Amino acid sequence: MIKITKENIIPYLKAHMPDFDDSLPVQISMVGEGTEEEDGDGYVNYIYRVQTPKESLVLKQGTEISRVSQQEIATYRNRLEYNSMRIFYAITPEYVPYLKFQDRENNIFVMEDVSDLKVVRFQLNKNKMFPELGRQCGEFMAKTEFCTSEYYLSREQYRGLQKHFENTELRKIMEDQMFLDCFGCDIDYSLGKNFADFADQFSKDSRYRTELYKLRRKFMSHADGLIHADLHTSNIMASRDKMKVIDMEFAFMGPFGYDLGYLVGNLISQYCAACFKRFPSEQSRKQFKAYLLATIQSLIETYMKTFTLCWEKSVKERYRGQQGLLQSILQEVMEDVPGYASMVNWFRSVSEIPYPDFDIIEDKDAKRNATVLSLMIDWGIMFGRYKYQSADDLIETIIGIEEEFRKSL
Amino acid sequence: MIKITKENIIPYLKAHMPDFDDSLPVQISMVGEGTEEEDGDGYVNYIYRVQTPKESLVLKQGTEISRVSQQEIATYRNRLEYNSMRIFYAITPEYVPYLKFQDRENNIFVMEDVSDLKVVRFQLNKNKMFPELGRQCGEFMAKTEFCTSEYYLSREQYRGLQKHFENTELRKIMEDQMFLDCFGCDIDYSLGKNFADFADQFSKDSRYRTELYKLRRKFMSHADGLIHADLHTSNIMASRDKMKVIDMEFAFMGPFGYDLGYLVGNLISQYCAACFKRFPSEQSRKQFKAYLLATIQSLIETYMKTFTLCWEKSVKERYRGQQGLLQSILQEVMEDVPGYASMVNWFRSVSEIPYPDFDIIEDKDAKRNATVLSLMIDWGIMFGRYKYQSADDLIETIIGIEEEFRKSL
Repeated sequence: MIKITKENIIPYLKAHMPDFDDSLPVQISMVGEGTEEEDGDGYVNYIYRVQTPKESLVLKQGTEISRVSQQEIATYRNRLEYNSMRIFYAITPEYVPYLKFQDRENNIFVMEDVSDLKVVRFQLNKNKMFPELGRQCGEFMAKTEFCTSEYYLSREQYRGLQKHFENTELRKIMEDQMFLDCFGCDIDYSLGKNFADFADQFSKDSRYRTELYKLRRKFMSHADGLIHADLHTSNIMASRDKMKVIDMEFAFMGPFGYDLGYLVGNLISQYCAACFKRFPSEQSRKQFKAYLLATIQSLIETYMKTFTLCWEKSVKERYRGQQGLLQSILQEVMEDVPGYASMVNWFRSVSEIPYPDFDIIEDKDAKRNATVLSLMIDWGIMFGRYKYQSADDLIETIIGIEEEFRKSL
Repeated sequence: MIKITKENIIPYLKAHMPDFDDSLPVQISMVGEGTEEEDGDGYVNYIYRVQTPKESLVLKQGTEISRVSQQEIATYRNRLEYNSMRIFYAITPEYVPYLKFQDRENNIFVMEDVSDLKVVRFQLNKNKMFPELGRQCGEFMAKTEFCTSEYYLSREQYRGLQKHFENTELRKIMEDQMFLDCFGCDIDYSLGKNFADFADQFSKDSRYRTELYKLRRKFMSHADGLIHADLHTSNIMASRDKMKVIDMEFAFMGPFGYDLGYLVGNLISQYCAACFKRFPSEQSRKQFKAYLLATIQSLIETYMKTFTLCWEKSVKERYRGQQGLLQSILQEVMEDVPGYASMVNWFRSVSEIPYPDFDIIEDKDAKRNATVLSLMIDWGIMFGRYKYQSADDLIETIIGIEEEFRKSL
């Protein structure tokens, strides 16, 4: 197996891409060498950016050893990522980087560089707004989930995807860490003992734990459609009008609405941060908070509308006219989304893994307040979700809990 | 490929089973030549019974053409059946015939003959009671489902079973026929136009249809454990104290409680028949009806208790102490069981496929009453199920609807 380095990447590209032109100056950089803001927070793979005056490419190689942690990790992830990108690109080319070629033998693929766009997380951290983000992400999720489900594909294709994206090794990371590691063992004590006790008490409450286990059961066993499964704001690149989803190696056939809930969770974190971090003015804080809630709303509503449109236009004959089934699917999504949002926020709030959304808050009290508010919202929406009929109900809970919390300060 | 016949079966067995002894008289019969009561109602495979004074064997061959319908059908079913029997035997040897050998090349396996036991359906049709049936079947289902789930197996084993038992071709028969073919197209008109109109009207009601589609979604997409998937009373052989499950070619990784609901459905059909068929005395009718309800109760309660015991004794460390998750799983089973029962009864009541449970009722009015009562119970439990906490609630609905129906006669 060839291991790509800055030294051999140009001959490698020339050998595999006949039209690659290195007659003009070529710039090579490795993701991870730049700032997190430029590169996102990918720690696992070897990713090179190759820029010529004509084009800009990204080469991604999955090695047997994870780049930063130096732990063993299955190399098939590179092949699965390539294949999930191909599928997602076929459905929504506007939201997925274009793939140039794949080298299965060496666990490499090359794709269009989308670094003209910015990593959404770090822009949100700087109060930058992407007005189309909710609509774009909602469309991406609904279209890709619908078109990889049995409501669109033949049974054989649908079950073929399940087998192909079995992906046990990478899913395990989410199934254990994301859903369960928030229990007790690694609360971030840097916010002080009071906060730690508060978070610890919540973490150990068996009612919350049961909800997490119920959601995890669905995540592990219910195969609706191909989901990204790690669609946080660092895996979304955007500009004012464009959006691209990256980093698809966790993809598998999972429950409708998982990605939606996961991203809503990130937006709620941002909202909690926006309640307490510093802004140039209270007016700009208000505007940014309103933007975040509007994005949550547009994300959920676009998902629901787009899924419904796909269904009406393209559902298999067996399901035509079965509006009751469609409603039941979307009602379940509406129940599950706040659950997944709560799960991911809870995990990111209490675990020791750095969480830039809160870590950028320099004032310790402000950071604690943002984190506590997040935990309170996580708690509220986890149990409130069974009554939610729409995004409005979720947003009402968020605003209500924020108001209550402010009174207690 | 060798095609087994009465002529070549003895040389075949001698070649494959070194200890097969044909020095004494050997009796060979083919299943399907005897009465349905002796043989059950298997129409798909070629099944031979070989009896010597020393032992009695059954040879099952899956050919490319279904025995009775002469339609093409996947031969891999024979291999899957052998493998599901092996797994079920490993978990509950007391409830599964012993396997002698497999010949993958020719889609054949040989197993212990269990024809010392009787096909349960035809015995129930004659008001024969099997006092242990509910307990035995509940134990079989709970143990096999638990031990093939991710609560017991490693993720790799669990996902391996999903892939191995993909079984798309046979599942398709259930997914389409059982869940959906009751809609309008083939109502049994032999009970008269009034009945047909009544059944037709119910069949076309979009609320009932939505419930069927919701259950079908779970059946198609939710992989909890290895289920039999066709566990009706003709696939259960029993005596007063023994019980064996046969015919496992539909097995796949499906939702907990599916087999339970399916069998409860058959017992409800028997109950409806018992309300109207002829008995030697009203006392014996009363006794048999009470037996059927007690069997439904014992079946469900044994399932719940056994599943709980398995969980407490053998659940993986990740899940220890997670009583909330266990309760949520069993609560979902309690909701789904009446749904699956309703589905299978509805299908068997309105479709043109012969249904011995009702067909043995000679009096046309009595048969219509039994069938109408069944449809009314199907309707009642389909919508009542969301409130059921236990088997008692289900049985209360059944008795209540019977009383209402009697008043209307």
